[in-house]
Amino acid sequence: MRNPKAKLLLGPGPSNSDPRVLRALSEPTLGHLDPDFVAIMDETTELLRYVFNTKNKLTIPISGTGSAGMETAFMNMVEPGDKAIVCTCGIFGDRMVDVAERAGAEVVKVESPWGEPIDPEDVKKAIRKNPGAKLLAIVHAETSTGVLQPLDEIVELAHEAGMRVIVDAVTSLGGMDVPVDRLELDFVYSGTQKCLSCPPGLAPVTVNEAAAAFIRDRKSKCRSWYLDLGMIQRYWGSERFYHHTAPINMIYALHEALTIVKEEGLEARYKRHKEAQAALIEGLADMGLKPVVNEPFRLPSLTTVWTPDGINEAAVRKTLLEEYNIEIGAGLGVFKGRIWRIGLMGTNARRHYVVQLLGALKDILK
Amino acid sequence: MRNPKAKLLLGPGPSNSDPRVLRALSEPTLGHLDPDFVAIMDETTELLRYVFNTKNKLTIPISGTGSAGMETAFMNMVEPGDKAIVCTCGIFGDRMVDVAERAGAEVVKVESPWGEPIDPEDVKKAIRKNPGAKLLAIVHAETSTGVLQPLDEIVELAHEAGMRVIVDAVTSLGGMDVPVDRLELDFVYSGTQKCLSCPPGLAPVTVNEAAAAFIRDRKSKCRSWYLDLGMIQRYWGSERFYHHTAPINMIYALHEALTIVKEEGLEARYKRHKEAQAALIEGLADMGLKPVVNEPFRLPSLTTVWTPDGINEAAVRKTLLEEYNIEIGAGLGVFKGRIWRIGLMGTNARRHYVVQLLGALKDILK
Repeated sequence: MRNPKAKLLLGPGPSNSDPRVLRALSEPTLGHLDPDFVAIMDETTELLRYVFNTKNKLTIPISGTGSAGMETAFMNMVEPGDKAIVCTCGIFGDRMVDVAERAGAEVVKVESPWGEPIDPEDVKKAIRKNPGAKLLAIVHAETSTGVLQPLDEIVELAHEAGMRVIVDAVTSLGGMDVPVDRLELDFVYSGTQKCLSCPPGLAPVTVNEAAAAFIRDRKSKCRSWYLDLGMIQRYWGSERFYHHTAPINMIYALHEALTIVKEEGLEARYKRHKEAQAALIEGLADMGLKPVVNEPFRLPSLTTVWTPDGINEAAVRKTLLEEYNIEIGAGLGVFKGRIWRIGLMGTNARRHYVVQLLGALKDILK
Repeated sequence: MRNPKAKLLLGPGPSNSDPRVLRALSEPTLGHLDPDFVAIMDETTELLRYVFNTKNKLTIPISGTGSAGMETAFMNMVEPGDKAIVCTCGIFGDRMVDVAERAGAEVVKVESPWGEPIDPEDVKKAIRKNPGAKLLAIVHAETSTGVLQPLDEIVELAHEAGMRVIVDAVTSLGGMDVPVDRLELDFVYSGTQKCLSCPPGLAPVTVNEAAAAFIRDRKSKCRSWYLDLGMIQRYWGSERFYHHTAPINMIYALHEALTIVKEEGLEARYKRHKEAQAALIEGLADMGLKPVVNEPFRLPSLTTVWTPDGINEAAVRKTLLEEYNIEIGAGLGVFKGRIWRIGLMGTNARRHYVVQLLGALKDILK
């Protein structure tokens, strides 16, 4: 018996899917080479370029969730034996290390404490010590800590050293500016279930000319057949070469979700995310709750907050979910039991949802 | 502008999604650790065991399309350097060779001509010549040729030689018996968009105890993080260890599709597929069109037929799609331009759809 009740999803993702997106999901399935579907694919790539704010030709959704986007990046951008500098200050940076090693990279880690961003000075040192490194990877929006990573200086250092740059924008795309073209980021991946308010299942990626050329001229075959962009781009390009059957209905949903973003406009959307977070931080402060991350490193779409002393934080989350139909996220790793993760992503980044959450929290904690 | 028109999908897949499945897709998105969603996950694995007709504990949907199922099989079942015997007589056997090699296998091919099954004698010879081979892989239902591969003798040979067996059941699961437990198949994968009549996007897999133990005791890490069953099974098991965010709404759809299969019953469903094909073959014979594959090797869910002499087969398919709203498939590889592939899969395996197709074909060819 399956009858999922609508809840307010204010955790680290998925966020609520827009009702228009849910309706798009149930449109009739078409063949993956049907001219009507091919037209939808073309429009989807155009809309993705708008949302990524890029001119990159190779801008497509990968047929898996955000983590498949991460794997696509490393499988395609690493030749076995390549040295890669991977920055990590949270779960998703750690995941990058694991994924990079499985793709055959020799990984050099640059770390900083959880709740803080990576220090460009540490990157500078790592580059100096590893002159042959081919790749730098970094998380733009670390969902496990709520840290927004400034990219300018680090990306510039990497590019000066001739390195390719991979950026994880899973929790930033659609909620704040991702400087794809401005910083000439080589490979950026994201997910659909965060600030795009589309169900999980696709990983939008964008690849610049330099990275596309690298993929074209690889010496070794990509270790993943399923995620081999050399082949996948021939299906998304004018050739329409069959690779695997695209997740047709999920593409409808993404098409609708991106259309909604474009209707609102990127700047208005970014502003809405910032304003919603400001209301949340103010309300939490009134309750004596302090954010984990200091400005200017606070991620607009995901706020981390220290849990109040002397309460059972898991019990609070359980009550929130069961009695108030609101989901918020637990802490992971070193933050387990010590923080909450509150997402205001996509359609959920609105003041009235903040008020709803704060009211419920006050009711439980009183 | 996205407004996909409903068409009758009688190609090699996707088949039409059942309307109930499309409605399930648009149910509200839940969090991937929400107790209500976790209950749906548990029911989905139970239903998958019913459809695979297996007691295998490790029976789950992988978060990608059918080809991700293939990649999951080889990434988890191959240790780099393992010798693998891969049987191929079509596109999907060829794909297995490529995927196995990328996973690090040393591949020995056993081939037969397109349109015919693999000969167990050839497998016997290959096993004799390669006494150290660890793995045998074979396609049960070759979608590029319409061949149904008898498995009993070949699987027995492989198991006698101590080899693990991977079977591709993408186009057979839900349309005919897949002998998972009877032949103790080690790893079987499928897709949702064929005989399950669910949109593409998930790959059901089932893994027996021996294969699960192999995966648990691997010496090397699985080359794919995203498809690492050692980790994924901890999310689908009672531990609920977070790996990646499941494609929530696609799981709803699969849950509904499997429920529909169970309501009908496996035997009734298999019978319906056979009867629909018999009606198709009879109708094609009346038009002078001959099947490519001889009995008993004809795949019930996908019929391949030689195109009539002296016509432009691509133009016929185009007219069928544009004027009659019916999709059928083209030939691939050596069959390009020479055959049509007509799928009667899942909800589409019904006589009245056969009559609709035959009427349209006669109208075009008259």
